[in-house]
Amino acid sequence: MAGHTSANGTGKAASSSRSPLQAEAASSEAARLLPQVLQLVQDFIASGEKPETYVAPWGSIPDFRKAVTLDLPDSVSTDAAGMPDETALMDAIKLVFDHSVNPWTGRFLDKLYAATTPVGIAADLVLSAVNANAHVMSASPVLSLAEERCVEGLCEVFGFTEKKPDGLTMPGGSAANTLAVQTALANVFPPFRTQGVLGVVQYLADKGKAPRPLLFTSSQCHYSLDKAAISAGLGLDSVVKVACDKTGRMCPKALEEALEQAVQQRTGTPFLINATSGTTVLGSFDPLPELAAVARKHGCWLHIDASWGGPIVFSHRAEYAGLMKGSQLADSITINPHKLLNVPLQCSFLLVRDADTLSANSLDAGYLFHSKDRRENAAMKTMGCGRRGDALKFWLYWVRYGKQGFGHHVDAGLQLATQLVEYIRSKPELELGPLAHPLFLQICFRPKQPSSADDGAHTLDPEQVRVRSKGTQFVYQELKSRRMFAVDFAPLPNDIGDYIRLVVHPRTRMDDLRTLVDQVAEIGHAYWKQA
Amino acid sequence: MAGHTSANGTGKAASSSRSPLQAEAASSEAARLLPQVLQLVQDFIASGEKPETYVAPWGSIPDFRKAVTLDLPDSVSTDAAGMPDETALMDAIKLVFDHSVNPWTGRFLDKLYAATTPVGIAADLVLSAVNANAHVMSASPVLSLAEERCVEGLCEVFGFTEKKPDGLTMPGGSAANTLAVQTALANVFPPFRTQGVLGVVQYLADKGKAPRPLLFTSSQCHYSLDKAAISAGLGLDSVVKVACDKTGRMCPKALEEALEQAVQQRTGTPFLINATSGTTVLGSFDPLPELAAVARKHGCWLHIDASWGGPIVFSHRAEYAGLMKGSQLADSITINPHKLLNVPLQCSFLLVRDADTLSANSLDAGYLFHSKDRRENAAMKTMGCGRRGDALKFWLYWVRYGKQGFGHHVDAGLQLATQLVEYIRSKPELELGPLAHPLFLQICFRPKQPSSADDGAHTLDPEQVRVRSKGTQFVYQELKSRRMFAVDFAPLPNDIGDYIRLVVHPRTRMDDLRTLVDQVAEIGHAYWKQA
Repeated sequence: MAGHTSANGTGKAASSSRSPLQAEAASSEAARLLPQVLQLVQDFIASGEKPETYVAPWGSIPDFRKAVTLDLPDSVSTDAAGMPDETALMDAIKLVFDHSVNPWTGRFLDKLYAATTPVGIAADLVLSAVNANAHVMSASPVLSLAEERCVEGLCEVFGFTEKKPDGLTMPGGSAANTLAVQTALANVFPPFRTQGVLGVVQYLADKGKAPRPLLFTSSQCHYSLDKAAISAGLGLDSVVKVACDKTGRMCPKALEEALEQAVQQRTGTPFLINATSGTTVLGSFDPLPELAAVARKHGCWLHIDASWGGPIVFSHRAEYAGLMKGSQLADSITINPHKLLNVPLQCSFLLVRDADTLSANSLDAGYLFHSKDRRENAAMKTMGCGRRGDALKFWLYWVRYGKQGFGHHVDAGLQLATQLVEYIRSKPELELGPLAHPLFLQICFRPKQPSSADDGAHTLDPEQVRVRSKGTQFVYQELKSRRMFAVDFAPLPNDIGDYIRLVVHPRTRMDDLRTLVDQVAEIGHAYWKQA
Repeated sequence: MAGHTSANGTGKAASSSRSPLQAEAASSEAARLLPQVLQLVQDFIASGEKPETYVAPWGSIPDFRKAVTLDLPDSVSTDAAGMPDETALMDAIKLVFDHSVNPWTGRFLDKLYAATTPVGIAADLVLSAVNANAHVMSASPVLSLAEERCVEGLCEVFGFTEKKPDGLTMPGGSAANTLAVQTALANVFPPFRTQGVLGVVQYLADKGKAPRPLLFTSSQCHYSLDKAAISAGLGLDSVVKVACDKTGRMCPKALEEALEQAVQQRTGTPFLINATSGTTVLGSFDPLPELAAVARKHGCWLHIDASWGGPIVFSHRAEYAGLMKGSQLADSITINPHKLLNVPLQCSFLLVRDADTLSANSLDAGYLFHSKDRRENAAMKTMGCGRRGDALKFWLYWVRYGKQGFGHHVDAGLQLATQLVEYIRSKPELELGPLAHPLFLQICFRPKQPSSADDGAHTLDPEQVRVRSKGTQFVYQELKSRRMFAVDFAPLPNDIGDYIRLVVHPRTRMDDLRTLVDQVAEIGHAYWKQA
């Protein structure tokens, strides 16, 4: 540690220099430091369970920025024995907790994820202590095996049993969707890997087909499909957005027409259809069997983006579990246990019906891969290399709750959502937005403009839309400044304007949801009175 | 929890159903569960500090597979109060520790990462408890601010001060390199974003240039550059591999010639040069000022893949810190604090000299982005969306060790590497492979074939190469079965065959390195005796 506090940045290293990262034995540092940090973690969780705790510490980003600055020290102070002062570190950790959104309140209804569970924290602790890279099994035996097992379990649940399936964790749903698009390109068009899009163009021309590869997805899909098209060198123009019905489901007939139009008018050659299971705004599920039939007819890869809605497959309610009927017909599926199943961020899987399709993503690396077996070399399945062992988190959840527990978890959320919709309907001063059918976990609503009698809101003129969206945004800002609930707002399909969107999580409390709805009604009432 | 153990998978949810994820208050579950897990973490660390502890629990993957199976239960058992039995979870966690590589031994010299520190574990604990998505600042105020600050700090260190720089964390070096390639494509070729590679071809044709975009990188670069070319729709044929000198550095003259040849022969139009700072096998640094001059002359984007070697910039030794001289001339830089700086996996940054270049990766998402400010919407900078707040880990390291501490850490590793090379040189029965100049942290060596007098090994015939590689692989397998050291082997440039490659980490103990070298000499001696 000699010289560690010296301002002389170019001083020669002492001949017996030791890294400051090992100023003491890790075991003694861990024994002193980690129980303190764990206490702060427990305090944060316990604080979240108090009804008076703010869900968001700041009403606005500018306020937050004014109050919080983060130091990047050149040098740090040490005690007489050369040990770095622990105060700065503990203060920094306290600062994180003091100024973070507290999802343990159960009042964070803003996004498609929420708090994790103590099991999730335990899993992260294990991952951090083991710190093994899941790129090859020899470096991370159990983490790689957990990934293999979770992939097997998920493939079975989704009906990937005809061929030998495979899959892997990805750092997020967007990354998984992107890898699906790239894998599809390489499998549908053999020259893609070596010659890229240029090779695909030649390949299509040789077959007398229109040279632009086209990707079809619904107008309500996640924007990662657009990003995947940019990433893969296709460009946004290669994405065809297909119309949805009023509940946000892709219309198979519109898909069929769009495909046939593209082929007839030679605007391009369809290669991929993306189905969304659980759209971001409304929580709708595209009809898989119908989409699969279209995909088969046109020789397209069928990908299902089930990042959000995939866990519905575990539901004990037949009408819900049936939403994933037809999943076995897909070529690939994305599912994110870090969303609906409350596994810590990030935990996302890409599954493929046919293991061999992933060989498109393999490259030799003599220093890394010492066998050709993809099961022992997960980095061969993806465009990345180093990987955190995210599957371990999901495996520990599976051990703790079982498949049936996942179903009960999902069903608890669905029941809350039903009760919430009933409660909103009971409030004449609120306007309920379009709902997924069957109802899923996102509920969109806004204060009703007092003079208006409609509730369907499908024939609004642009001025009415503007006025009502302003009402929504007022409510959103007011809720934000009160800091007791975190919700979001979103523009809804069919140009009906902005609605408050909240995501019911299975651990949300119904009492809190009622309070929130009451507040939206109250704020809206005050707003329209002065508007 | 009613029905949680029932086999009736289609049973209707009870009207008062509660998610099994909240069978009890999170605070009480955390208080009971997490101290037990933390104790296992501390035991794992302490065990790693015992000299007799195996670094790898298994000598081979088949042995591991035979001994370990991971359960995926349909249902779980509960106690009388309906609480899930904790034994299964704790057994699962113990299994992970019992069968994982133990990097705390300091004898894991196999890869470009090693054990983290208790500070790293603390950071992961905090991230897990907060579980905030760093896609927008409103969801993750402190994590987003930590990312902003770390990006500022790193940009300053690398000299990105002329324009307003920017950057973000990525889930790994490969992902960061891939995003750099995509960002370069979109900035060098404006039609890329909307029309993809097809638009680029037209754009180049209109300018009278050869239609294939070409990427130049050294023969010793990381394979993620190849993967990035596949991902971006360029294909492997668009990657031009440039020759290196004997120490693994790209030859600027060879680069210049390759570029001019491509332009003159119209095989393609160069758009990106990738420089590697710290190659995977030898740890070499490409000469940045020379490469930057070539990039400027040809209008190419200059990317530096400093995933591994980037932290050398913190060194207090001028000849080492100087290896990153010229970094300020790059357009983008990848650096992975999870490698040399022992931040937990994953922690990787992509930095750009000009913040505006990242706008190529932005897409509107009305439900997510409520301002155009990329500082408040990190997901606008990348092709992904949801993101773990990995920067927090690096910020807590920075608070704990300071910039100077990073330098002392790196220098401690360099000193060990120097001592190790001296020790290997003192052993006549060992053959040292080519070394980076100046020496970095990877050392390649193998047992010398007794009959051979050479040590440079540059004129070996294929049969000699085969014979010596076999010796290397024998040593590797024997070390593996002894389980006291984890090392890797790699084929070295210029067809001189396989060498044992070990990565000196700043916290490796010199005594252990000497023991390992002794063992390689001893195993090699026995091998050649019987060969």
